[in-house]
Amino acid sequence: MSFATTALRAVGRGVIVSQARCMSVQFKAPVRDIQFVIDEVLEGDRHYVKAGYEECNEELRASVVEECAKFAEDVLSPLNKVGDEEGAKHDPKTKDVKTPTGWKEAYESYAALGWQGLSVPEAYGGQGLPTSLNMVKAELFATANWTWGMFPGLSIGCMNTLILCGSEEQKQKYLPKLADGTWLGTMCLTEPQCGTDLGQVKTKAVKQGDGSYKLTGTKIFISCGEHDFTENIVHIVLARTENSPAGTKGLSLFLVPKYLENSDGSLSKEKNVTCGSIESKMGIHGSPTCVMHFEDTVGYLIGQEFKGLEQMFVFMNTARIGTALQGLGAAELAFQGGLTYARDRGSMRALSGTKAPEKVADPIIHHGDVRRMLLTCKAVAEGARCMMYDVSMMSDYMLKARTEAERKAIDEEMGFLTPILKGCITELGLEAANLGVQCYGGHGYIKEWGMEQNVRDARIGTLYEGTTGIQALDLLGRKIFIQQKGRSFGQFAKRVFAYTKKQLIDDRKTSQHKWEALSVTRHMLQWFYLTGRIGFNAQANKDREVISTSSVDFLMYSGYVTMSYYWLRMMDTAAAKLKDSSLAQSERDFYEAKIATGKFYFERMLPRAKSHYALALNSSKVTMDDRALGGLPF
Amino acid sequence: MSFATTALRAVGRGVIVSQARCMSVQFKAPVRDIQFVIDEVLEGDRHYVKAGYEECNEELRASVVEECAKFAEDVLSPLNKVGDEEGAKHDPKTKDVKTPTGWKEAYESYAALGWQGLSVPEAYGGQGLPTSLNMVKAELFATANWTWGMFPGLSIGCMNTLILCGSEEQKQKYLPKLADGTWLGTMCLTEPQCGTDLGQVKTKAVKQGDGSYKLTGTKIFISCGEHDFTENIVHIVLARTENSPAGTKGLSLFLVPKYLENSDGSLSKEKNVTCGSIESKMGIHGSPTCVMHFEDTVGYLIGQEFKGLEQMFVFMNTARIGTALQGLGAAELAFQGGLTYARDRGSMRALSGTKAPEKVADPIIHHGDVRRMLLTCKAVAEGARCMMYDVSMMSDYMLKARTEAERKAIDEEMGFLTPILKGCITELGLEAANLGVQCYGGHGYIKEWGMEQNVRDARIGTLYEGTTGIQALDLLGRKIFIQQKGRSFGQFAKRVFAYTKKQLIDDRKTSQHKWEALSVTRHMLQWFYLTGRIGFNAQANKDREVISTSSVDFLMYSGYVTMSYYWLRMMDTAAAKLKDSSLAQSERDFYEAKIATGKFYFERMLPRAKSHYALALNSSKVTMDDRALGGLPF
Repeated sequence: MSFATTALRAVGRGVIVSQARCMSVQFKAPVRDIQFVIDEVLEGDRHYVKAGYEECNEELRASVVEECAKFAEDVLSPLNKVGDEEGAKHDPKTKDVKTPTGWKEAYESYAALGWQGLSVPEAYGGQGLPTSLNMVKAELFATANWTWGMFPGLSIGCMNTLILCGSEEQKQKYLPKLADGTWLGTMCLTEPQCGTDLGQVKTKAVKQGDGSYKLTGTKIFISCGEHDFTENIVHIVLARTENSPAGTKGLSLFLVPKYLENSDGSLSKEKNVTCGSIESKMGIHGSPTCVMHFEDTVGYLIGQEFKGLEQMFVFMNTARIGTALQGLGAAELAFQGGLTYARDRGSMRALSGTKAPEKVADPIIHHGDVRRMLLTCKAVAEGARCMMYDVSMMSDYMLKARTEAERKAIDEEMGFLTPILKGCITELGLEAANLGVQCYGGHGYIKEWGMEQNVRDARIGTLYEGTTGIQALDLLGRKIFIQQKGRSFGQFAKRVFAYTKKQLIDDRKTSQHKWEALSVTRHMLQWFYLTGRIGFNAQANKDREVISTSSVDFLMYSGYVTMSYYWLRMMDTAAAKLKDSSLAQSERDFYEAKIATGKFYFERMLPRAKSHYALALNSSKVTMDDRALGGLPF
Repeated sequence: MSFATTALRAVGRGVIVSQARCMSVQFKAPVRDIQFVIDEVLEGDRHYVKAGYEECNEELRASVVEECAKFAEDVLSPLNKVGDEEGAKHDPKTKDVKTPTGWKEAYESYAALGWQGLSVPEAYGGQGLPTSLNMVKAELFATANWTWGMFPGLSIGCMNTLILCGSEEQKQKYLPKLADGTWLGTMCLTEPQCGTDLGQVKTKAVKQGDGSYKLTGTKIFISCGEHDFTENIVHIVLARTENSPAGTKGLSLFLVPKYLENSDGSLSKEKNVTCGSIESKMGIHGSPTCVMHFEDTVGYLIGQEFKGLEQMFVFMNTARIGTALQGLGAAELAFQGGLTYARDRGSMRALSGTKAPEKVADPIIHHGDVRRMLLTCKAVAEGARCMMYDVSMMSDYMLKARTEAERKAIDEEMGFLTPILKGCITELGLEAANLGVQCYGGHGYIKEWGMEQNVRDARIGTLYEGTTGIQALDLLGRKIFIQQKGRSFGQFAKRVFAYTKKQLIDDRKTSQHKWEALSVTRHMLQWFYLTGRIGFNAQANKDREVISTSSVDFLMYSGYVTMSYYWLRMMDTAAAKLKDSSLAQSERDFYEAKIATGKFYFERMLPRAKSHYALALNSSKVTMDDRALGGLPF
């Protein structure tokens, strides 16, 4: 594997024009923070050996982090604002979509560097590195330019589906081209009448004599459904075969190339599927959100008929965790932007006394409320990072699982944490993005600073890949009460209690964060109690709707508590490192910052859980009282 | 006073084209809700007689509400989306600003209907009606089209300043034209280096032989600083005379017309002040945010030299309450939009059992979490409305005050509630706007539905007229600890306790909301305790920065508690009305909706105060720990 630094520098130069034109946030890749989480907190060396990725040692990891950081800073970050300003453009005549200036070149450079196949098995042309390492790339690109990252990101969902459910022939034919980035892929699920409720899908697939199918229907909200990055696009499409059962049980998955291949391997000139229009959206302007028309479109069945939804859900966890990255990135960007501005902008004097007597006013970083906002963004970004890498390390075992049972066990463990990650981190990321704007005062509302773009882009995070409400129902309804009957919740709690027991009992004489460990323990116990109470309300009191009315508060409670466990681990890791008296000052500062930020999390963020707890304890009665809506006809 | 309904209908027809093109929310004016608050909860008849506005009886009030409702629904609401799409346009050559299609015509119709002078004293060409009645107009226009409403709204600040501080000559010369809407006015405070910290203002004013001044400097963020609505614009400008003391004590106010008058009363052709450019913003696109260049610009001193800031602050409460309306409007619009969509969109089945067996899925209004979001928006809009009208009724006494002491006493009472209103209602309004988007799922992110515009427009609310952080410092620092030493806090508490005592003790046998009354009382006591604790931390523990680190949580706590008092009053009023057995069913439904929504507020919103309470109790230590930012050079 080689990272052609020279090539990416060249691309970097190509976009200097747009960089100069814009004043957007100068993104600085949090390399040290990522290494702290992977190498130190989550003990990367031990993990990768255990997961069977011996080659993924610290040196290799460092090179991935550093090279991705360069690409993110030099190439992708400057293209972020261009994408917002220009947006993707649809030509109603040709049905083509043109991406913003410089985006295609950046993609070509990315593909040439071999990054698309980072975690694709070598058998299919990838580099066979662990999924969690792909997360490093995804995080850095997501923060620098989330929207650009959607193009390669969605293709990974497509590849994963093929790897797990495709026929050997399909794999051999499509995966190498997807893995090296020659082609990109999408997922086509949503239709005008349904997003979450996929049982309503109407797109039809009629079997042809040659074993292929002809698809007819309309899909909407297809991110990157049409573009100019690659010569071909591979769509994974959810559709209904003839005489299929109603609802979700009649759905099947199809592979639909934008251009079919001729017998000589060349691509046909005629499009097999067309983009009718693209949406005008609040943000992520560079990503074309396509209305896709299937009209006698040729498609190929993936896996078994009627198993479409099940197959689709195989990598739902991975996809949703990927979306959670958007929240992390938004918080990181808000922190970096807010910090830069707060150090520069002077206004009034600090309440605790003048800090910059040589200036006409103190930099606003000395004002308590500004500090509160900055540290909230920081605590969210860093807390989310640790949560996300831990869960993505679980997924490292997925592709190596030898049996379906083994794979399912891992999936179940991830499945419990996934809605917490997706739901809470996108919500907190959106809040952080808004705090980023708030740090700038009125200037935050002006486009040139880039802070308002961060809010507009981050706003989609709580909507797609299942809204926050859907994540909350998934967690409380499916993952806790029905599907897993609390199994994976119990497993997670066991891990946490084992950890806090060590802090509170075994190592009580040396552990420095006993108060925090006790707080995590107490919150975990309340989490159990809360779950029980909601379950009791739902069952004994026959108040089934409480699962829905309490779900989002339950989700947010779960998020704050889960994050507290990861903050505790980061604080402990940092404290252990600080025992080394030979540490360089910069390293000492780094670890002390982790502990201080963790303390901020425990004192200034975790108490938010109190309200969510109180709110989730209520029955559904007042919320579902139809009278509140004034006798409206429902 | 006559409301030319025919004229406004004509304007309504003029904009039908744009209405048809857009799918934005069809705004329905909450006429009944406004009347409930003014006539019933706040006992309008009694209030207006007491305040010396006998003519402002129920009939007059009803005609104002209804006519404003028509104009808001028929004319302004359809122009809301046009404004967002087209935006205001600046011509760098002529320095002119063109407003969006139809906006000027709507303004001309508005001015012709005589609404600009609604609450301006008759002596200056106004209709002399109370300020709180102007709030009805402002609310309805704000919800239908906040951005358009900024043009006439800012002019009211300008008029108020002239009424209170201008010379008789200035009043006679400018007020009639401002009152009848022939001219519009602005306030020019902010400069590139300062917004909140006005002591840094640099714009210079040099006295000329004829008593006038020549101004030089640059003002930024001047809303509606240049436009094509009126033939002239009157700016109120904060500037610094020669040899003035440094800081805020050297500031004076000047009146600066865009075009000076020639000796024959005609307007000069040359601009006296020019707009160099307008900002590209997240939202409120129709409102030009101007960079104003003062170059040898002629201005006239208003009031006394060096009293600029003081004079500016006279109507700061009114201006800030006006901004709070944006939060109310955003919540109302989110509720209306969300409700419409939730009744129409089908997805899945309700957890409590199928609600629409004839359909393929239940409308999402039957899902608990959707209901939670809708009722949150509703509770915010209605709670905010009651708070705001009560405070604006206080301002009815302002213009009628006979002595400065009397005026100051009223101002002080309003001054305590103002930051709570401005700070919390804009924050809650922004949250509600986001919930409006969330109800639509992915569709909320698409421009055509209008929900994302609501978020972008509402986002400015927590930033201008003092950010939320500034409101919080104003409340805790100035209004409670320093300036008023808790006086007005005590006054407000007395009012609340008198009310809850009646519910809990005097009328305990009949009052139906004793639990809620107890909850209000308990929260009020905790509010006192919290204030005391923060004060103790700041003084005894010498932790002055805690005033800032705790301020926003204190503000939000204050907001939730204040709103609970107003919800209690609305619930009680509704309960009293329901005793009348001859009520029509629609009226019964209306009052029951109030009580049910109030119950939702107490059970599902007020508990949020718990977290703010816990957070505000902390010292500033962890928040101000410089180590958290990793040894950065500050």
